[in-house]
Amino acid sequence: MTTIKCGEARRKGLFKGAKSLHSMDHSTEEAQTKEMDIRSLSSSHRHSQSERYIHKVGVPPKQNLFKEFRETLKETFFADDPLRPFKDQSRSQKFILGIQTIFPIFEWGRKYNLKKLRGDLIAGLTIAIYHIRDIDESPHFHIETILIVLLCWINRILDMQSLQTWIHNSSFVPPLIYAFMGSSRDIAIGPVAVVSLLLGTMLQNELDPINEKAQYQRLAFTATFFAGITQVTLGFFRLGFLIDFLSHAAIVGFMGGAAVTIALQQLKGFLGIKKFTKKSDIISVMHSVVASAHHGWNWQTIAIGASFLSFLLFAKFIGKKNKKFFWVPAIAPLISVILSTFFVYITRADKQGVQIVKNIKKGINPSSVNEIYFSGDYLLKGFRIGVVAGMIGLTEAIAIGRTFAAMKDYQLDGNKEMVALGAMNVVGSMTSCYVATGSFSRSAVNFMAGCETAVSNIVMSCVVFLTLEFITPLFKYTPNAILASIIINAVIGLIDIGAATLLWKIDKFDFVACMGAFFGVVFSSVEIGLLIAVSISFAKILLQVTRPRTAILGKVPRTTVYRNIQQYPEATKVPGVLIVRVDSAIYFSNSNYVKERILRWLEDEEEEVKAATYQPRIQFLIVEMSPVTDIDTSGIHALEGLHRSLEKREVQLILANPGPVVMDKLHASSFTSLIGEDNIFLTVADAVSSCAPKLVEEQP
Amino acid sequence: MTTIKCGEARRKGLFKGAKSLHSMDHSTEEAQTKEMDIRSLSSSHRHSQSERYIHKVGVPPKQNLFKEFRETLKETFFADDPLRPFKDQSRSQKFILGIQTIFPIFEWGRKYNLKKLRGDLIAGLTIAIYHIRDIDESPHFHIETILIVLLCWINRILDMQSLQTWIHNSSFVPPLIYAFMGSSRDIAIGPVAVVSLLLGTMLQNELDPINEKAQYQRLAFTATFFAGITQVTLGFFRLGFLIDFLSHAAIVGFMGGAAVTIALQQLKGFLGIKKFTKKSDIISVMHSVVASAHHGWNWQTIAIGASFLSFLLFAKFIGKKNKKFFWVPAIAPLISVILSTFFVYITRADKQGVQIVKNIKKGINPSSVNEIYFSGDYLLKGFRIGVVAGMIGLTEAIAIGRTFAAMKDYQLDGNKEMVALGAMNVVGSMTSCYVATGSFSRSAVNFMAGCETAVSNIVMSCVVFLTLEFITPLFKYTPNAILASIIINAVIGLIDIGAATLLWKIDKFDFVACMGAFFGVVFSSVEIGLLIAVSISFAKILLQVTRPRTAILGKVPRTTVYRNIQQYPEATKVPGVLIVRVDSAIYFSNSNYVKERILRWLEDEEEEVKAATYQPRIQFLIVEMSPVTDIDTSGIHALEGLHRSLEKREVQLILANPGPVVMDKLHASSFTSLIGEDNIFLTVADAVSSCAPKLVEEQP
Repeated sequence: MTTIKCGEARRKGLFKGAKSLHSMDHSTEEAQTKEMDIRSLSSSHRHSQSERYIHKVGVPPKQNLFKEFRETLKETFFADDPLRPFKDQSRSQKFILGIQTIFPIFEWGRKYNLKKLRGDLIAGLTIAIYHIRDIDESPHFHIETILIVLLCWINRILDMQSLQTWIHNSSFVPPLIYAFMGSSRDIAIGPVAVVSLLLGTMLQNELDPINEKAQYQRLAFTATFFAGITQVTLGFFRLGFLIDFLSHAAIVGFMGGAAVTIALQQLKGFLGIKKFTKKSDIISVMHSVVASAHHGWNWQTIAIGASFLSFLLFAKFIGKKNKKFFWVPAIAPLISVILSTFFVYITRADKQGVQIVKNIKKGINPSSVNEIYFSGDYLLKGFRIGVVAGMIGLTEAIAIGRTFAAMKDYQLDGNKEMVALGAMNVVGSMTSCYVATGSFSRSAVNFMAGCETAVSNIVMSCVVFLTLEFITPLFKYTPNAILASIIINAVIGLIDIGAATLLWKIDKFDFVACMGAFFGVVFSSVEIGLLIAVSISFAKILLQVTRPRTAILGKVPRTTVYRNIQQYPEATKVPGVLIVRVDSAIYFSNSNYVKERILRWLEDEEEEVKAATYQPRIQFLIVEMSPVTDIDTSGIHALEGLHRSLEKREVQLILANPGPVVMDKLHASSFTSLIGEDNIFLTVADAVSSCAPKLVEEQP
Repeated sequence: MTTIKCGEARRKGLFKGAKSLHSMDHSTEEAQTKEMDIRSLSSSHRHSQSERYIHKVGVPPKQNLFKEFRETLKETFFADDPLRPFKDQSRSQKFILGIQTIFPIFEWGRKYNLKKLRGDLIAGLTIAIYHIRDIDESPHFHIETILIVLLCWINRILDMQSLQTWIHNSSFVPPLIYAFMGSSRDIAIGPVAVVSLLLGTMLQNELDPINEKAQYQRLAFTATFFAGITQVTLGFFRLGFLIDFLSHAAIVGFMGGAAVTIALQQLKGFLGIKKFTKKSDIISVMHSVVASAHHGWNWQTIAIGASFLSFLLFAKFIGKKNKKFFWVPAIAPLISVILSTFFVYITRADKQGVQIVKNIKKGINPSSVNEIYFSGDYLLKGFRIGVVAGMIGLTEAIAIGRTFAAMKDYQLDGNKEMVALGAMNVVGSMTSCYVATGSFSRSAVNFMAGCETAVSNIVMSCVVFLTLEFITPLFKYTPNAILASIIINAVIGLIDIGAATLLWKIDKFDFVACMGAFFGVVFSSVEIGLLIAVSISFAKILLQVTRPRTAILGKVPRTTVYRNIQQYPEATKVPGVLIVRVDSAIYFSNSNYVKERILRWLEDEEEEVKAATYQPRIQFLIVEMSPVTDIDTSGIHALEGLHRSLEKREVQLILANPGPVVMDKLHASSFTSLIGEDNIFLTVADAVSSCAPKLVEEQP
């Protein structure tokens, strides 16, 4: 496996009269130090000749094409090796495992006991109670409670009956389905602020929720249906990694943008405007607001809204100031609703133009299978909205699932999770639900309250169902302005300036993606914002692959390690040898750049050498290939070009530590025989120690 | 700069009862060897404590944001540092340099002398003569001579007059302009087969060259104009790197596809079909051919075509078989044309339905400024065709320029080159030329004949102009079938099966991109083919960034080097320590995958350890970060998640050799303080030698 090839006097033809550097006797001080470095290097090298082996760079055993293809496919789509437990099992065992894979409840259900039930019962009740609280300081997934969602929807649909139906079902059917199919033990399922608001905003771009109520609802069910289908499809085809393409930065920006959009929409209720734009971008909204300034605003509404908004903000301030009063901001919205409803009921302010919720009916929700659009214009619209809402819902649920799985240290199969979430939404869309997903704040409470399994979801849904059934009728006289205030107060928390600042500090490009998402959402639409963020994120990756970093390496003193001289200013260059590291796979997109960049490094170095006295000219160019994880045919052409250019200048090209894939391809293209197998080394140190004795001294 | 931190007993809390591995006395054979490895490691470590420094991983000095931004911009758009010669010059000097930059003729013109003129004169005459030859075995840029182009265009336009105009001008005006503005000394400019045929194919998709001759020509000028504009724009905005996005693989496939498409188009002339499809895809063409089988084919035409095609193929075979007869395939087309023209003239076969060229007029070409569409439908079409043709033309010219510049060892400014090529085409479009670019075979001849400057282009254009003026009138009775035969014979050489095979051997993904381009062009259109190839190429890059390779490292015996154990089977793992290398920048698109992949490596390793006896459990996870060239906020979140998961398992996370950018970001996000500054090492060897004494022995 190992070959000895030290100190051979190869290439005598190229470098005539090869006197070693050691015979240099007219050295300046600087040259002397450097020379000593080399001398020590090559003397240590010589001294150890008998005991030191220079290892050949390994060429990995040639893989079978089919096997290679399968491996790539496996790493791409089955990175988590989902079939591992099926290995070495009998057929009936495999069948049972299969059922358990689709319905994990049959797996954990068998080990379910009273102790676990107790944990789940407590946790379920806690999340249910938590629904009327409003404390969530989590930096990524923000304030969201049934109350907020409920109020948002009231404000949008202005129809208590359908709202009730939706909330009932979205808090009842999906958690139930999830309990059977989901594999996370901690996630709490239900309607979630971000997804709900996103869905609402997009639906309102298409239809008016008041005048076209029936179609609006049908479109919502259609969107929910396709959101579910999207999720199932992604999961089934194991395309779960696509949601990773929504970077953290994009989500921060997107959330902030959504918050601004939502707050702006609330100006309608807050100012008591009757004619309001259907669009969600800031320009249309501000135009609506200004246009209605003269006669469209209702001062009583503004007074109620402003005073309660101040109250809510003050309550939040109190809660932040003193941790003891954490419950103040939590109950403030409820107090506001009760107070304002009572106030309006007493003063009959609705007669003065203060808009109220009205229309409260009770009733059991019907099946909505027939309401889904399976043809026509709305099919496409519903599909588009559903895809976006489904993706966002997934992103949130998977992130939550992963977080808690990491805490309890169990693995979560993202793709299986998606199938569960998707199935839950498909069933939901047929039972008058809209898109449900995992809620961060409720999941956190669930986790803290000691949940053991998904049974807590079942408990919660029952409690919420009953509560809503009895509480909602009380909302009849609630003024819309108070709901607007609550929403504005709530969504302000979605604007995470701290996270954006951190992005700026860590990665400017991430910050740009974040701002792109933010302004895209604010000035145009949710889809455009997402598109911008994703495009910027990818542009970054492509830029990195198009213009990879290169670095000059130097020897870190008293080691045999060669590192970037910019990062390690104490590292010294080796005279006569230029060591360059390429920091990326060499692909068609960067092959020419890499070649020309290396030649430019060489030119710069040669100029420097010319300026200095008694420096040997550059005779060896070592390319450190450790970070070069892959190369393609264009890359190999570039290396060939580099080799040719270097030959013209009498500089020998040497490669250090090419990886298995690169080595394989260099062999296949016979580039290795072009530059000579013995010019490929395991490490830069090996390469340098083989160059040093061959350096030719030249008189300037 | 250096700190000593060997052998400290840090983290006593975490690893209680820290007995070193050395006290293990019940070892099996395998364990013994491994143990010895560690012992030697840590003993050498201990022995060298007094003299050995462990270097801290450097954090690069914090850069000014503006400076950083400028650097990135510079590397992206001004990678070649075009302003370097302007530095430290007086204002008048700068002006002269500026003029010389735009018109390099003023730079080299001043040093022009008789000796150079002689070289250029000979080279210019040689390329002109070469135009009637047909020998080019170059694997990438294939057979193309004025004759072929001429014949192609005859066959397409069927109008000698406009053809003559075009050839005249395309071989006359563009080389002249280029001589003033271009910076390559060796490139020979003129109409080129690939670009001409591409342009012709795309134009024919829009308009019929016979019935809509005037519009067809105008559209061609419009396309040429926009091709020029595209080239100037790309050069001016320094977007030259965009042409790198056409990978070598894509070009091979694209050329092959174009060859098949062109050959299929020739079936019209070859079979004497009168009604032929305007589309270029194989299905439409074959449909046309089959539909006209009963009455549309002309047997006399087929007889002439087939016999001369056999003759041409035989001549090619002779030329390949015996290098002495290289001139046989070179003159065969000319002989065919002369023979067949004479034959048709004698037998008056055109009366039997054999289509001939006809219509020969002489005349001087008019200005075509007014013919370019600057409005209407055709503006857009011309623009689209022009962009594609311009890009392909650029790709070819730049590749040629680079090749010869590398041979004579001078640098070529790709962006400046583009401006020159673009200007030449813009002027060309106004003087009745179509897209011209650099021709590989003619440039090679130019180079071999000893050209010195672009003056050889001027010489060539004059000679070609005169030759065509006197030879073309002889073509009146040439049958179309013979032209079809010549073209079919010529384009067969464009199908480079050897290159495709090499692609398959080196890189399967490149092969897929190549086939994508090929089938895209053959079954749909040129644009679709290009789109497919570019998409596949990018998918490859994204896949590499989404699913980066990871590898387990082991110690290469008798070194302190740690390498992939798959590539170096002799490398041995260090007991109790898992060393993983991540082979890519960690971005949002792969951060979750990287985290979970590392955890999966750990699980696999732990299982293996459990199975073996007397192996210490994994207590340290070293992540080798050398190939991790960048990290973003999602990546840092993933590392934090990894750290948390590892803490649960009582495994210490250690980073080895993070690069400057990564180090900077880890600092900014205070991840370094989370895992502890002293858990970041310069090399894997340092990390291992610091772990070894801290390993805890555990009884199974």
